[in-house]
Amino acid sequence: MYFTTYIEDKVERVGILNDEKSKVLDLSKITVFQEFDQLLNLIEGWNHELREVAKEVIDNKKLWQEQGTDIYKVKVIAPIPRLKRNVICLGLNYKAHVAESQSALSAGIKMPEFPVYFTKMSTQAIGPQEAINSHPQITQEVDYEVELAVIIGKGGTNIPPEEVQDHIFGYTILNDVSARDLQRRHNQWVKGKSLDTFTVMGPWIMEKETISLPVELDLYSKVNGEIRQHSNTKDFIFDIPTVISELSKGLTLEAGDVIATGTPAGVGMGFNPPKYLKAGDVVECYIEKIGRLSNPII
Amino acid sequence: MYFTTYIEDKVERVGILNDEKSKVLDLSKITVFQEFDQLLNLIEGWNHELREVAKEVIDNKKLWQEQGTDIYKVKVIAPIPRLKRNVICLGLNYKAHVAESQSALSAGIKMPEFPVYFTKMSTQAIGPQEAINSHPQITQEVDYEVELAVIIGKGGTNIPPEEVQDHIFGYTILNDVSARDLQRRHNQWVKGKSLDTFTVMGPWIMEKETISLPVELDLYSKVNGEIRQHSNTKDFIFDIPTVISELSKGLTLEAGDVIATGTPAGVGMGFNPPKYLKAGDVVECYIEKIGRLSNPII
Repeated sequence: MYFTTYIEDKVERVGILNDEKSKVLDLSKITVFQEFDQLLNLIEGWNHELREVAKEVIDNKKLWQEQGTDIYKVKVIAPIPRLKRNVICLGLNYKAHVAESQSALSAGIKMPEFPVYFTKMSTQAIGPQEAINSHPQITQEVDYEVELAVIIGKGGTNIPPEEVQDHIFGYTILNDVSARDLQRRHNQWVKGKSLDTFTVMGPWIMEKETISLPVELDLYSKVNGEIRQHSNTKDFIFDIPTVISELSKGLTLEAGDVIATGTPAGVGMGFNPPKYLKAGDVVECYIEKIGRLSNPII
Repeated sequence: MYFTTYIEDKVERVGILNDEKSKVLDLSKITVFQEFDQLLNLIEGWNHELREVAKEVIDNKKLWQEQGTDIYKVKVIAPIPRLKRNVICLGLNYKAHVAESQSALSAGIKMPEFPVYFTKMSTQAIGPQEAINSHPQITQEVDYEVELAVIIGKGGTNIPPEEVQDHIFGYTILNDVSARDLQRRHNQWVKGKSLDTFTVMGPWIMEKETISLPVELDLYSKVNGEIRQHSNTKDFIFDIPTVISELSKGLTLEAGDVIATGTPAGVGMGFNPPKYLKAGDVVECYIEKIGRLSNPII
């Protein structure tokens, strides 16, 4: 099942999609969901009973006929437009991407023995079709990174790998837009990852029970229709249970935390000469079973 | 003038201190401040008129006699217990600390040409006298870092250095507690900086007009009474206008953002053998004109 944040009649709403992802239903029309005026609140309050009601909603064909809205008629925005804290990102989690980063970003980069975490500040996450600012006064090396992002549902600390699944709410796509020159200039990566509009998320969140484990999803990115990255999340160096368990050691994770699991090879800096994004380009990130996230560069 | 978050009669309150910092006054007793139920809200709403009223409050001796509470009778907590997003930290902003980090943390560290930013996740910032967890199952190398932290008052992007002062609300002390082994293990620094209780902040916020520019404040840290770090913020490699202006390039800062300006030499990892914190220790951070922030290690 899929949850979305969208705007209809100038009002921000929390919606659920039908199986075909062709229609959206405003969850405020369903009594038990009325208290959740943001998707973040629904994630915080999510439980087994709500999931059962949501399943009934999806299967209620009469309800969809009467109350469903065609998805193309609404404006889908980032599922969590305003995050509670920075996005937690994994660096170097696909082998071939480690190799390209080594030659393009820093010779000091090596195959990680442990997960490499960094964060991305985000005043406002942007959603599908919203414009990514290329900040030409500040950077000349804007790059794309398609990533599977995990949304935490139940907070916790020292979570054993075998219990990680209980703490996940679902998954979405994150384009971890990155200014490579700023990553080098400021040594640690956060500044180059955090320019305004560089957190691109969506189009919606797939609830965890929609897929079976382990998570093996095809993903790719395209720029102006040309395939750049293409891999599968089964190629992770550190799998999701390891990434979240290790992160949670001594560090309390909370409902709504977003953990981006790293990007595969094929980013712009990996080409010779590099293929950075420029105004007028369109970048598209796709993950199997979730969908696609397409954004113009301005 | 100084603002504090404190607990009295089991209620969290926003307070202002008298000149001697011996008494606190609950700001909800003053009409114009009633709408600000958290110090973060007051920071977001701060303006010239409120400052004028606050000055009158401080000078109103009768009010203090009738309504002031002795500071030692209340529990002062972190001024912003729950941050809006991660603390933004400066690495390597005092020359002598760059040298000690090079030998103790990574040979790859060199004198920075540009500010080195990283972030610190914080579920909950702790305040004076609250215990720092040494997390003995997770780290063997817990270290202290006294830092002057700047609190942003007015948000903005692309802030020129000469306008930075307009965007500052005030200053506090931040002990940027760090697990050195985790910083090395995970390559980027955020994980080793973000264990629960590792964001220590307080005891209160000094409003910016309390001091004249440039900011030249003596600061030190002590462990069990022994001086470890001792410097002055005039020794910054990058001064506050540079740090904030550079950070804000293409990146919108917001009221309530906390920017820690880096730590001077004398951290535990800089000694041979290293002097890490252990359960039973007491670490004290002092900054001239602000005060002291003392915490036991458990």
